[in-house]
Amino acid sequence: MPKWVYSFGDGKAEGSAALRNLLGGKGANLAEMASLGLPVPPGFTITTELCTSYYATGKALPSTLAAEVDAGLAYIERVAAARFGAAENALLVSVRSGARASMPGMMDTVLNLGLNDETVEGMARRSGDPRFAYDSYRRFIQMFGDVVLGIEHEAFEDLLERHKEERGYVLDTDMAAEDWRLLIEAYKRMVRERLSRPFPQDVREQLDGAIRAVLDSWMNNRAITYRKLHNIPDGWGTAVTVQAMVFGNMGSDCATGVAFTRDPSTGQKAIYGEYLVNAQGEDVVAGIRTPQPLTEAARLANRGDGASLERAMPATFRELEAVFARLEGHYRDMQDIEFTVQKGKLWLLQTRTGKRTARAALKIAVDMVAEGVIGEQDAVKRIDPQALEQLLHPALDPNAPRTVIARGLPASPGAAVGRVALSADEAYDLATKGEDVILVRAETSPEDIHGMHAAKGILTSRGGMTSHAAVVARGMGRPCITGASEIRIDVEKRRFSVAGLMVNAGDMITIDGTRGEVIKGAVPTVEPSLGGDFQTLMGWADRVRTLKVRANAETPTDAQTARGFGAEGIGLCRTEHMFFDNERIVAMREMILAANRRGREAALAKLLPMQRQDFVELFRIMSGLPVTIRLLDPPLHEFLPNTDEEIAEVAKATGVRFETLRTRVAQLHESNPMLGHRGCRLGISYPEIYEMQARAIFEAAVEVGAERGGGVTLEIMIPLVATRRELDILKELVDAQASAVARTSRAKLDYIVGTMIELPRAALRAGEIAGAAQFFSFGTNDLTQTTLGLSRDDAASFLDAYERAGIFPTDPFASLDIEGVGELVRVACERGRAARPSLKLGICGEHGGDPDSIRFFHEVGLDYVSCSPYRVPVARLAAAQATLAAKAERD
Amino acid sequence: MPKWVYSFGDGKAEGSAALRNLLGGKGANLAEMASLGLPVPPGFTITTELCTSYYATGKALPSTLAAEVDAGLAYIERVAAARFGAAENALLVSVRSGARASMPGMMDTVLNLGLNDETVEGMARRSGDPRFAYDSYRRFIQMFGDVVLGIEHEAFEDLLERHKEERGYVLDTDMAAEDWRLLIEAYKRMVRERLSRPFPQDVREQLDGAIRAVLDSWMNNRAITYRKLHNIPDGWGTAVTVQAMVFGNMGSDCATGVAFTRDPSTGQKAIYGEYLVNAQGEDVVAGIRTPQPLTEAARLANRGDGASLERAMPATFRELEAVFARLEGHYRDMQDIEFTVQKGKLWLLQTRTGKRTARAALKIAVDMVAEGVIGEQDAVKRIDPQALEQLLHPALDPNAPRTVIARGLPASPGAAVGRVALSADEAYDLATKGEDVILVRAETSPEDIHGMHAAKGILTSRGGMTSHAAVVARGMGRPCITGASEIRIDVEKRRFSVAGLMVNAGDMITIDGTRGEVIKGAVPTVEPSLGGDFQTLMGWADRVRTLKVRANAETPTDAQTARGFGAEGIGLCRTEHMFFDNERIVAMREMILAANRRGREAALAKLLPMQRQDFVELFRIMSGLPVTIRLLDPPLHEFLPNTDEEIAEVAKATGVRFETLRTRVAQLHESNPMLGHRGCRLGISYPEIYEMQARAIFEAAVEVGAERGGGVTLEIMIPLVATRRELDILKELVDAQASAVARTSRAKLDYIVGTMIELPRAALRAGEIAGAAQFFSFGTNDLTQTTLGLSRDDAASFLDAYERAGIFPTDPFASLDIEGVGELVRVACERGRAARPSLKLGICGEHGGDPDSIRFFHEVGLDYVSCSPYRVPVARLAAAQATLAAKAERD
Repeated sequence: MPKWVYSFGDGKAEGSAALRNLLGGKGANLAEMASLGLPVPPGFTITTELCTSYYATGKALPSTLAAEVDAGLAYIERVAAARFGAAENALLVSVRSGARASMPGMMDTVLNLGLNDETVEGMARRSGDPRFAYDSYRRFIQMFGDVVLGIEHEAFEDLLERHKEERGYVLDTDMAAEDWRLLIEAYKRMVRERLSRPFPQDVREQLDGAIRAVLDSWMNNRAITYRKLHNIPDGWGTAVTVQAMVFGNMGSDCATGVAFTRDPSTGQKAIYGEYLVNAQGEDVVAGIRTPQPLTEAARLANRGDGASLERAMPATFRELEAVFARLEGHYRDMQDIEFTVQKGKLWLLQTRTGKRTARAALKIAVDMVAEGVIGEQDAVKRIDPQALEQLLHPALDPNAPRTVIARGLPASPGAAVGRVALSADEAYDLATKGEDVILVRAETSPEDIHGMHAAKGILTSRGGMTSHAAVVARGMGRPCITGASEIRIDVEKRRFSVAGLMVNAGDMITIDGTRGEVIKGAVPTVEPSLGGDFQTLMGWADRVRTLKVRANAETPTDAQTARGFGAEGIGLCRTEHMFFDNERIVAMREMILAANRRGREAALAKLLPMQRQDFVELFRIMSGLPVTIRLLDPPLHEFLPNTDEEIAEVAKATGVRFETLRTRVAQLHESNPMLGHRGCRLGISYPEIYEMQARAIFEAAVEVGAERGGGVTLEIMIPLVATRRELDILKELVDAQASAVARTSRAKLDYIVGTMIELPRAALRAGEIAGAAQFFSFGTNDLTQTTLGLSRDDAASFLDAYERAGIFPTDPFASLDIEGVGELVRVACERGRAARPSLKLGICGEHGGDPDSIRFFHEVGLDYVSCSPYRVPVARLAAAQATLAAKAERD
Repeated sequence: MPKWVYSFGDGKAEGSAALRNLLGGKGANLAEMASLGLPVPPGFTITTELCTSYYATGKALPSTLAAEVDAGLAYIERVAAARFGAAENALLVSVRSGARASMPGMMDTVLNLGLNDETVEGMARRSGDPRFAYDSYRRFIQMFGDVVLGIEHEAFEDLLERHKEERGYVLDTDMAAEDWRLLIEAYKRMVRERLSRPFPQDVREQLDGAIRAVLDSWMNNRAITYRKLHNIPDGWGTAVTVQAMVFGNMGSDCATGVAFTRDPSTGQKAIYGEYLVNAQGEDVVAGIRTPQPLTEAARLANRGDGASLERAMPATFRELEAVFARLEGHYRDMQDIEFTVQKGKLWLLQTRTGKRTARAALKIAVDMVAEGVIGEQDAVKRIDPQALEQLLHPALDPNAPRTVIARGLPASPGAAVGRVALSADEAYDLATKGEDVILVRAETSPEDIHGMHAAKGILTSRGGMTSHAAVVARGMGRPCITGASEIRIDVEKRRFSVAGLMVNAGDMITIDGTRGEVIKGAVPTVEPSLGGDFQTLMGWADRVRTLKVRANAETPTDAQTARGFGAEGIGLCRTEHMFFDNERIVAMREMILAANRRGREAALAKLLPMQRQDFVELFRIMSGLPVTIRLLDPPLHEFLPNTDEEIAEVAKATGVRFETLRTRVAQLHESNPMLGHRGCRLGISYPEIYEMQARAIFEAAVEVGAERGGGVTLEIMIPLVATRRELDILKELVDAQASAVARTSRAKLDYIVGTMIELPRAALRAGEIAGAAQFFSFGTNDLTQTTLGLSRDDAASFLDAYERAGIFPTDPFASLDIEGVGELVRVACERGRAARPSLKLGICGEHGGDPDSIRFFHEVGLDYVSCSPYRVPVARLAAAQATLAAKAERD
């Protein structure tokens, strides 16, 4: 049997901060503080392993637990010099949860445990304050009743309110000792009626019940949801800390408060916190009384008229200052601390690393390096790369009121305000008139690109985190909410409804892509400003990392954004995105609908100069850096019209008969286009398409190469390769175009040819394929789809159920499935490099911007990751952290 | 440098039959016959390696070849006592192709090479027959002109016809020596005009040209197509055999003929063949003169009025009989022999293993075992499993005329005759009226099942060898042609057109699923009869093989067929096929459209007794054998109506509002259903579906188990698993149903739970998954789709181009992609068995009936393969051959 119980207090402890996984954050830090000699009420922590065992055995408790709890209680009794359940000077305890990762407010707590009809009288006698004693007892019954006995909170509140009404009281402070005593009787009667048994008077029975209740609260709905949102595994379990109570509400020499050692919002180095005189911890949070600031400076800044702790209890404040400095120095990070002053004596109830905004995190990390508390690499490790993205997008004014009318998936962060447009054309038209637009669609398709680009934000009622809308929006840096399923769009009536509310096209709405909230009306936004701390930290990250970071970009705007964010090249230029423009789509359709190769070539001849010009612009922006260009990838029917009306339009524009066109559209239809005639399969069937693209690329390279500043390093990428032979055929085609252009222009072309690895077969045959490829770029989106047999367009309908059932720990399209897809990536790297040691390896799926995935990519030895422009800083930081993590593992 | 040239003749040879890969079939057997001391004209063979080198080096010939050819010529000259290009007694040679595998008529041949203006005169003098000499020369010019110089055959024929017309001749025999001489001049003039150079007189230049022409013919379109059809790799190359000419046309003591040592059509043990007196080999084939039978018996049987060789040249016949016996005994197989008699002397020009019908192959193999020539295992090795399937399906009368109006893919073998029906309902109605029906559709869907079942055969204008139509048809044993793209179906006008010809609904057509031919009108068919030879051979196969063979079946008919063909259980019972029945589809739709779990359960309660009854019938038929039942697999929208009309119908039947229904149908639509909400994902989302199915299975098992004869061994299979957790959840669900049924019925249930391995992730995580699975069944159809990123419904549009470009050696849905998909199968077997040594391993994809794939499955150690009922004998034989091949490799 493992050891289930770890005690602490009186300047020593069985645990320490290092045992966080076993004792939870709270228990570990209490132990650590006790060992540091800080004033911590004595207590013991039941381990997270007990919780895991509890759930593994159908909620059975191991036979050895009771004896260990007895020993723990005896320890507390000894240190606190009080006895649990004793008539006089009874020991009271708190019972709290504490997981490895902080889950504030998600699980249950019981305070004042150990009070019963007898001990309350002893407390009244000893404190000389019967009102305090009875108030504590009724609080305990209320809390225990709610948490352990399952009687809803309101039932107790009702009795209290009734009592106050009957006596004409307004505030709780109107309640005298006798009032509380009478209320206690009423509470106990109610409990007996509800449960057909009395409120437990046996203190040990109380404790066992509270321990079980805290364990049970690990699996309440709030906790489950919180864990899902924060990627906390169910298997971690919670610890339970039982600790002697101290009281901040025993008179005016008592107080309770919470503090941060630095400002968690701005990062400023100043004690930040609040306290209340004569109060219990919960009162600070409850908001009935207004807490006062700790420091005089804060009081003056807020023009407060109360007294700061600094003024009210100067000795305690100085002690607290010293404790804060000690804890920050010890933990080498900003701390979030709970304390109580009982009759002039300071007790520390909790310390933990304080949560902070991304902005504060940056400032604190950079400041601490300047202060010599941590090193640059520690600073790099400290910042959550995901949080960094907040800083790059405009955000809603946090102080503005918001009327949330619907929720969806936070598909692309940031906020946007604009008028509702229900089609891409409408969005485009409105935007042309200078209006800000939110494009609202059931879902988007490549035909909507112009509208998405024109819009400030995108909202869809269907689709997941990796639907077309989500991926494109992230790429464009547009805030986006997908899968807002409460929204019913009625395109004909030009409006959408949500829970009875009608929103018309043209109405103002706001979307918060970071939270997934749809808000009625315009909420004011604040623009991001990237301060010096950001640049300093990114500089440190760049010094550490070995993985290069590129961007997925094809438009000049995206490329410029990417370069501004420090992208070291383009890792994925999706040439198909260049074909959706109004003028081009006509030529594209001509090409697709042509009866033969000659017809296709004629249409391609029209596309060539446009495509070349795109590349010229891109190459100028990316001058001096590598640019990876993927040849046409999506199935051709994506470019075709769908409705009869659209077909008629195209028929008119191209001069092709309506019937012919409709037949061809039907012929091009595929049951599973993701697995259909796309990628290099198009290049094999219609070599002229790839020939045109290769020619446009090389001609653009020659043009830009001749300019001052020089050109780019070209990497031509063949998509969806499954066999070596496909690559052989298409590499020959590309080389032939390069030779032709080089001959005509007498220029030297600097290019390599490589392939996407996005099919399991390609990963398995990587050794063979590397014989023909100078680089691999892992297309982890498609590789995830094929390896898991999971369409990202369709997965939304069950992915949620899957995450809830614990089947996928996280969305495999957001964070790489390292066990499955990752093995194929690893195998492909090994086999590819074995066959060609100089093989360049990169990744250009959505996972290129995900920190967990980046860590894996670093481990398997990729040369670079490529992600959407706004994710570039995220990736730079994550890459640096990956290097540090790998180093730490080696050491 | 390798040795390029191997000589033979005069009782000895540098090569032998063992060098078939190097010398081609013809070259190797000529060498072998020479070594046996049989009368073979001397010659030499240029190796297939030369051919490979020729294509690898851009058609360059190695520098050492010329000298080796010189040496080879010198050898022939010595043995034949004649000189190449000599004015008197000139050596003439033939130049022929010869690949490892026979490719009859696909490549080029040049005869009589060595004739020129000078040597022809010597030949005339020596033979005393100027007409013969000139005729030979003009044949040579004609053949050389066509094959080597690229002048079309017709140009020569024209000149010959013109000459005959001018002189009023009718037959070639009317041509006198002078006529041939004049024609030769005309030929030479024409060649000079066409090519601006004379017809080559240098015999060595002739020879070099002919060698190159034969090498080039390896890559002519006919040869490429033939190789593709017969899975012969391009890389094998052809050998070139240069051999002294002998003449069967030098007078009435000359003859030429072809013979089989046994009847290739029936397998009867009797010399079978034809000959012509005073003729060259090509005349036998050309059909201008009617060849005579070799034996008297054959002449009498055919009531022929000519003379058999047995009568006309009794000594030669006896010599031939002895040679035949010698060769058959030597090769231990039926031989196909070409011979020539020149002035009474017998020469053998070729021997090879004779092609034969499946029926003959069976008889010959079984007879030869009885004769003690070969052993049982040799007999098992001899039969092509693929060919066996011919015997099981009805076939068209080979003697009946046929008007082929279109061609498609031979998707399911056998022939069928019936009236055209253009919808499943129409097919069903017509069939109910007792008509034979051919269902003709653009493509089929699961909704067409009743029509497909009702039809005698299926024809689609779209789809590939593994489209829905193809797979279902093979499963049902219905002949089927898919992808007959010339056919344009006009459902409204109730007809289809093909190349201008209209075929109306109700018209009679015939389809030959073995050849992929659509035939106008009714061609008579012949029913298969499986004789004793078949049973004998299958018995030997069963004694050898270790791999078990099961069938994919769900209907009683299929199950009975399968058991009749020797299936050792059902490896895949697709429960969804049970839901398409008219009555059931309504309940199924109710279930899908239900607003909540309660509604679904109500609908499922209606389906339960029907599903149970299906299983009862199935279990009775399969009594004593294992039955693997796959729980619901396809996406739910497959069961839903598509058109507004159909939706209205369902709305009426189910009482659900039309709008609601249409919305739900749209909601269920998926972009890539193959990768969507299907398989076990349905079981996770809607556990009540799987609960109903499990209950139906167990209740049926109890019912049948109580009957005399007992029940089956149940294997419950969860489809599309990607993670261990999915299986854990669903296994628990199945076990719960089993417990419930066992409790109620007090019966003991014999079942195991396992999973399909059909996603790359499942294969990779097989170790983990095996922890929860008692068996794996590889779903190689889906595993191929996901590993290659290739939808079988859509691949038809480019798969052909892919095979032509040499990207896929064969259709990966027909024969397993061993390098890619195979690695995943192998990995899954290893990891699965490592985690659970008792793990049962099987395969239930289409590949389960493919001999090449079966060999691989045997190698990786599967326990069984499961295939469509008509493929069961094929698989039994292929499994036996796999065992023998593996044994041969070990030895």
